[in-house]
Amino acid sequence: MDLLAPDADRVATTIASLAGAFTESAEPGWTRRVFSDAYRASREWTLALMREAGLEARIDPAGNVVGVLPGRNRSAKPLMTGSHTDTVHGGGRFDGIVGVIGAVEVARRLRESGQQLERDLVVVDFLGEEANPFGVSCVGSRSIAGLLDAGHLERVDEDGHRLGDVMRSFGLDPAAALGQAWQPGSLHGYVELHVEQGPVLQSTGTSIGVVTAIAGIERLFARFTGRADHAGTMPMTMRHDALAAAAASVVAIEREGCGAPVHGVSTVGRFESGPGAFNVVPDEARVWAEMRSTEGEWLTGARRRVVDAIGAEASRRGVDLVVEWLNDQEPVRADPLVQDVIGTAADSLGLTWQAIPSGAGHDAAHLAHLGPMGMIFVPSIGGRSHCPEELSETADIADGIHVLAATLAQMDARAEPVGAA
Amino acid sequence: MDLLAPDADRVATTIASLAGAFTESAEPGWTRRVFSDAYRASREWTLALMREAGLEARIDPAGNVVGVLPGRNRSAKPLMTGSHTDTVHGGGRFDGIVGVIGAVEVARRLRESGQQLERDLVVVDFLGEEANPFGVSCVGSRSIAGLLDAGHLERVDEDGHRLGDVMRSFGLDPAAALGQAWQPGSLHGYVELHVEQGPVLQSTGTSIGVVTAIAGIERLFARFTGRADHAGTMPMTMRHDALAAAAASVVAIEREGCGAPVHGVSTVGRFESGPGAFNVVPDEARVWAEMRSTEGEWLTGARRRVVDAIGAEASRRGVDLVVEWLNDQEPVRADPLVQDVIGTAADSLGLTWQAIPSGAGHDAAHLAHLGPMGMIFVPSIGGRSHCPEELSETADIADGIHVLAATLAQMDARAEPVGAA
Repeated sequence: MDLLAPDADRVATTIASLAGAFTESAEPGWTRRVFSDAYRASREWTLALMREAGLEARIDPAGNVVGVLPGRNRSAKPLMTGSHTDTVHGGGRFDGIVGVIGAVEVARRLRESGQQLERDLVVVDFLGEEANPFGVSCVGSRSIAGLLDAGHLERVDEDGHRLGDVMRSFGLDPAAALGQAWQPGSLHGYVELHVEQGPVLQSTGTSIGVVTAIAGIERLFARFTGRADHAGTMPMTMRHDALAAAAASVVAIEREGCGAPVHGVSTVGRFESGPGAFNVVPDEARVWAEMRSTEGEWLTGARRRVVDAIGAEASRRGVDLVVEWLNDQEPVRADPLVQDVIGTAADSLGLTWQAIPSGAGHDAAHLAHLGPMGMIFVPSIGGRSHCPEELSETADIADGIHVLAATLAQMDARAEPVGAA
Repeated sequence: MDLLAPDADRVATTIASLAGAFTESAEPGWTRRVFSDAYRASREWTLALMREAGLEARIDPAGNVVGVLPGRNRSAKPLMTGSHTDTVHGGGRFDGIVGVIGAVEVARRLRESGQQLERDLVVVDFLGEEANPFGVSCVGSRSIAGLLDAGHLERVDEDGHRLGDVMRSFGLDPAAALGQAWQPGSLHGYVELHVEQGPVLQSTGTSIGVVTAIAGIERLFARFTGRADHAGTMPMTMRHDALAAAAASVVAIEREGCGAPVHGVSTVGRFESGPGAFNVVPDEARVWAEMRSTEGEWLTGARRRVVDAIGAEASRRGVDLVVEWLNDQEPVRADPLVQDVIGTAADSLGLTWQAIPSGAGHDAAHLAHLGPMGMIFVPSIGGRSHCPEELSETADIADGIHVLAATLAQMDARAEPVGAA
């Protein structure tokens, strides 16, 4: 097992190389958005990295960079690991990237140490995991998991460009991307290494997070319509103040998250109102919010309570309200046996670990449709993510890669199916 | 006295002529903003209207159209009446305009009826009463009242243009505008007719409002600075959510106005926040608010309570807060004897009246520095103002003009000073 310890310096250098060479120079931080020129160039770099590590690598019709390390039994169900190398606008160097570089490092160490797994190990850099202007995250992992559909390709960005057309311009084959899905049950297991993107592991001084579930997301868009009046002459009791109704709704949505059990958060990320003059009672306001939890029942209740609360705030101000739910991603539980293998692997390496929910979405949520899924988290300094300051220590990343390697080796040795329980 | 009844049809036609001929065609409603081409053209129309009514009229260095109807005793302190003909963006046909057209009608009826006042009657269409991009309202009345200073002329709009330069481009003489102030005490009285811009007179079925005071205005700008975090992974208790702190502040500011005695309102007119993504805890928010009241003591207390309340909302979320007070206009009381004259005039004409505070600012607030000031309100349908739907009935306007004429005649007959009490 010790032979599978990663080369921490090599990992750090590889992460720095990707950030240094393939970043959108006109954008803040370490931006490398899906479909950008920097991202296009980086796909070739990832492909070369995989090949240099000894993988049989190619770019699939959906733009995933897929590398295979052949096992002794090529007909056995394969193991899969990976993540993504695209970033949000103004993002950092570690979100997703650690999981791709870590997966390649595991494969490289297997080769270097002369060990061969029973099964094929498939390493994937999934295309476009982050939210994009088309409103379709995880484009590549959806394709492999059979969750990308023709409707997704019809989505348009603010300039009216279709996702399918942009994929084609990027050199991909949208029709084939819809047809390449793996069969449910075709994976022996999927394990993804990722930075926590939150403050829990650092604050508890824990090396490894064993993900219990990936949160479901409920997103709402609320439009408040009141009446514009002179702010000096219209008495408070006769107003229809859309901004005030929306602001009270923000407070209600925040309160819902603060009262959530175990894992639940609610966030108003965007707020707009008009007309925006000092002396005019605002007649319109718009609120974009989301609630996340690994507990589907809480999400269902929170959704109902939020609608009631903001409806009451609008009603008592005589403001019209329209609420739309834009998205409804169900929580996805990690496979209990895979969680157990990860915890055992961490124990065997003398690393502290704790069970932790994932508030962020991940490619793993989609891959769970193909087989038993698990995720390994490593600490994020200050919990910062989706910003240039995002940081995970090399030693922590190396620990995570070591646990990934041990987990995959353990799973490889198990009889199918891992997730029978 | 009956000879001074206005010609209602002529008044209605004149109001319609101004709106029909001098509106910014590319803008909504009946827009005629200060310094626009439509406004420039309308100044000549107002000048011609005054001359045709028999006034000795000119445009002064600050752009006020000033017409004088000579009295029998040219050395007596004059009476002044007037208002403004500029509008807000998307404004209506009556705010300000009724006071100018009404004042010209009073002068015309004096001439037509062969009556001459003891004193000169000065009719003014004051330049630029409405808020403008330079943040200097009531440009013309400030100039006459000696309240326009060099600092005002240095104010710049969003494109960096100086108010002084824009006035010069408009054909005015900014230096002379600073030097033309009338002496305090030089007016026998100032009376302004205006639409209420609120719902009170219509809702009580009253013809005439006798203004008791013009509200003071406290304006605040609050900037909240928090920390951007991943909205899925950062626990509620560890956030620094600037948008939530700002929204809670909006609720606190609204509550302050709802608890105000007699006349007090508070309004958040503008709210901005960023970065504006669904899945990022917002790190910045900005709130522009105002509080108005005719009660200076309440304003002072409300200002203190609002700072405390929004400070607490920011503090408990770990959000930094900077508050600026952008403006501090004190309440201005109407002269009690002028109020009495207006009420008596309404009584003598068989018109119902009530005392009413003005939540809106007016040129009259500045003219009060030169002599006893009073204002006459007529009903606004639905209380709507600063919008295209703004409407006052011709019959109500005619009643207001009749009361204005009677009030000026009564004041003319009184010994100086009217406002001695």
